[in-house]
Amino acid sequence: MIKQLANNPSNLVSESLSGVILSNPNISKISEVNAVVRSDINIVKDAFVSIISGGGSGHEPAHVGYVGFGMLSGAVCGNVFASPSVAAILKTIRACAGKAGVLLIVKNYTGDRLNFGMALERAKVEGIKIEMLIVHDDCALELGKGITGGRGIAGTVFVHKIAGAAASQGLKLSEVFDIAYRASKQIKSIGVALSMCSIPGSVPSERLIGSVYEIGMGIHGEPGKEQRPFPPEGSLNEIATQMICHLLESSYGEPFVPQSNLALMVNNLGGLSVLELYALTGRVIRILADKQLYVVRSYVGTFMSSINMAGASLSLIHVNPIILSYLDASTSCSSWVASPVLKPLDDSYDIAKDIIDRVPIAAESGVESYPRGTYECPHALEYITVAAHRLIDIEPRITAYDLVCGDGDCGLVLRAGAQAALSALEKLTASRDLKSGDSVPINAVELCLCLADHISGSMGGTSGALLEIMLRAMAVSLVSVGLTTLA
Amino acid sequence: MIKQLANNPSNLVSESLSGVILSNPNISKISEVNAVVRSDINIVKDAFVSIISGGGSGHEPAHVGYVGFGMLSGAVCGNVFASPSVAAILKTIRACAGKAGVLLIVKNYTGDRLNFGMALERAKVEGIKIEMLIVHDDCALELGKGITGGRGIAGTVFVHKIAGAAASQGLKLSEVFDIAYRASKQIKSIGVALSMCSIPGSVPSERLIGSVYEIGMGIHGEPGKEQRPFPPEGSLNEIATQMICHLLESSYGEPFVPQSNLALMVNNLGGLSVLELYALTGRVIRILADKQLYVVRSYVGTFMSSINMAGASLSLIHVNPIILSYLDASTSCSSWVASPVLKPLDDSYDIAKDIIDRVPIAAESGVESYPRGTYECPHALEYITVAAHRLIDIEPRITAYDLVCGDGDCGLVLRAGAQAALSALEKLTASRDLKSGDSVPINAVELCLCLADHISGSMGGTSGALLEIMLRAMAVSLVSVGLTTLA
Repeated sequence: MIKQLANNPSNLVSESLSGVILSNPNISKISEVNAVVRSDINIVKDAFVSIISGGGSGHEPAHVGYVGFGMLSGAVCGNVFASPSVAAILKTIRACAGKAGVLLIVKNYTGDRLNFGMALERAKVEGIKIEMLIVHDDCALELGKGITGGRGIAGTVFVHKIAGAAASQGLKLSEVFDIAYRASKQIKSIGVALSMCSIPGSVPSERLIGSVYEIGMGIHGEPGKEQRPFPPEGSLNEIATQMICHLLESSYGEPFVPQSNLALMVNNLGGLSVLELYALTGRVIRILADKQLYVVRSYVGTFMSSINMAGASLSLIHVNPIILSYLDASTSCSSWVASPVLKPLDDSYDIAKDIIDRVPIAAESGVESYPRGTYECPHALEYITVAAHRLIDIEPRITAYDLVCGDGDCGLVLRAGAQAALSALEKLTASRDLKSGDSVPINAVELCLCLADHISGSMGGTSGALLEIMLRAMAVSLVSVGLTTLA
Repeated sequence: MIKQLANNPSNLVSESLSGVILSNPNISKISEVNAVVRSDINIVKDAFVSIISGGGSGHEPAHVGYVGFGMLSGAVCGNVFASPSVAAILKTIRACAGKAGVLLIVKNYTGDRLNFGMALERAKVEGIKIEMLIVHDDCALELGKGITGGRGIAGTVFVHKIAGAAASQGLKLSEVFDIAYRASKQIKSIGVALSMCSIPGSVPSERLIGSVYEIGMGIHGEPGKEQRPFPPEGSLNEIATQMICHLLESSYGEPFVPQSNLALMVNNLGGLSVLELYALTGRVIRILADKQLYVVRSYVGTFMSSINMAGASLSLIHVNPIILSYLDASTSCSSWVASPVLKPLDDSYDIAKDIIDRVPIAAESGVESYPRGTYECPHALEYITVAAHRLIDIEPRITAYDLVCGDGDCGLVLRAGAQAALSALEKLTASRDLKSGDSVPINAVELCLCLADHISGSMGGTSGALLEIMLRAMAVSLVSVGLTTLA
């Protein structure tokens, strides 16, 4: 049994839509079907081309999250992973059709092509001015393989944005279609999945439960390019590199040539942590910069999900000033997040350039202000070293206990503290130029303060603060009683 | 082994931060520590109070996603689920401290209180004008139980927004503190978890892997109020009701009295699908309306996650026009999503009011335009009925196959089609007032068109479109050859 927040898988889509409507009075539902339109559609549809998209549900915020000024006029929602019916699409077209006409933006799946295509033909018979654009940005499969060609995935959201911005400028249907069509040819996407998604009401899939990941999996879990063993270390670098290689080597559309400016979308497929999503983003921007491909806009978030799939997709679009003006144009929809203007990274990029460090350097601790001891202390360093290594070794057990009775960080924090203590000892002994096995003359106050400094800078957590307070207080006490050396 | 996009769990936080910086030139990293500030901090810090927050990582977009004009001036990031060190906090305070002073907003955890508290005291010694506000919005545990009192969770983001907006108006530190303090007393939050999160580099937890859920689990997986069996049906209603009851019955702070206006935050803890998140939102707004508590702003998204936990938290804040003006004020940060103004639902609320249906009703299909047949057809309905039931029964197997070779929707689509066929037969037989067991006089064209109509309205998917085309084409062919009845 998959645990999901649904009264009944068969009405989850309509329950979810009613949450969208209740949260946003600027979009309205069409009766009897799972479709929404801008609430002001009847005011704007004669002057501005209406943009409609849609497809199976399970990809939220696509497509309802993009309904609003500057993006979509309407969105039609099928059941989870299933194309909407012709009847629902046709009803949405009729609601949005005015003198300016309608553009359908459809992702390249057989079901969507058939249903949107049938609705298109019926709308034409009714005298509605309408065009359809099929988007296939997913370059997971080689061109020419498979039956239907490339699938449409998150890069389609770029087409929604560009077409919507062009329409909101009052351009004609043929012009909006032309801009959207040319933009769609500049987009390539690739996905990666660490886990399969959970389809409401279905039995969990066994796919990807082992230590593997899949490059190029589609947003419905369609087979990708290949499954690879999940690397025990360095997964971020490997996966980011694989994805970029795939995007750059794909035979889809025009290649991205060096010195190009690109907009990047890093799309959460639903179940990846935001922490990982940004780590992927940083890695991707650097790898592209190494290839002289410059990211000038970066859109990071959940744009087109696959329910709760742990994974991400990358979409790249080659941009020029006109495309950028459409991407930067304002929109009232709830789920498009604007990107600031990014300065292209050049070959000499160094993260340090992005660092401000205009604050005064923290005052050095008083280590040097106490005289060094001259007494032998054969055991202090040894004891601390043994204890620190022991603490590092048993971290998994401490973490397991703390997951039961606390918040799960105790093991890692103590391990960081132990490593800090080892660094402190290394610094103390290095400064004395000792050979291994020599016994160490050490000053107790110096030891406490050096440990406190290292712990302060690296350990964190409650225990870090408590240890630092204890060590500093101990140093002050040792000075006050005149006992400044360990005998 | 948990599969995560990380080269090494120990540097995931800094890798992620560099992705944030590379995606947003408006925030800058402080050297050597995992902390960021507004890039324009040196220009604004004398005129406007600086707001700093932070805590353990793993809660992204909190807190770095809220750094920008109108919200936070700086954010300090500890390791995953661990408080940042005093040194890192102090460095951030020094970077943000100007003539207007600094307000620290800290969630109520022992580690954060200790480390932020120590940094606060050190900053005061340095002559920095600074105040600290502790937020404890989580009402999972009864007041007075536990050692540290209520924990701070997603409701803290409301405090960031309100304090940041007040600061950006040029109010004094004491005024900003006072506004933020009073707002924090109006906030209550509660979480629910369907699964535990995966801590990078740690062994997966066994908690919640069975058919249970936990009300009140904290954002680090701290124990909640209780675990309950996961209901096989109606989980959305049960869980939404449980959460609301808990928020309204909690002894924390002031109770929410009927006729109050509230702002609602529905926060994804990381691994819940957006589809479910909106279903929860809709349910919660209605339950509150039933209790005469009116949601006038609704914030739905990932505001403070627990890595990839499948779950959500609800936060409610009692609002007045001043609080609303702060919530509605603009901000340049990347992760706050504004809410439109919502009209309070009254008792008579009906979703139908939100429906626009100004489009012409779709033309009825031609069922009535063909004469009904008069010939007996003892087997047609029987065969279709048996086939439909068989299709419904084997849906799980079809879904399993389609997950391997397709996109996983085939089983559900075919089941919907089978149900549509049964409905079509029911309509045909009902209109003839038959008793069970009677044989049915039926017209072949009528049968095809009735099946096509039902499939068109409900089945969707590729197979739905193909079946509809086939059935309509068959009807046309039958008419063209004069064979309009099934013998």
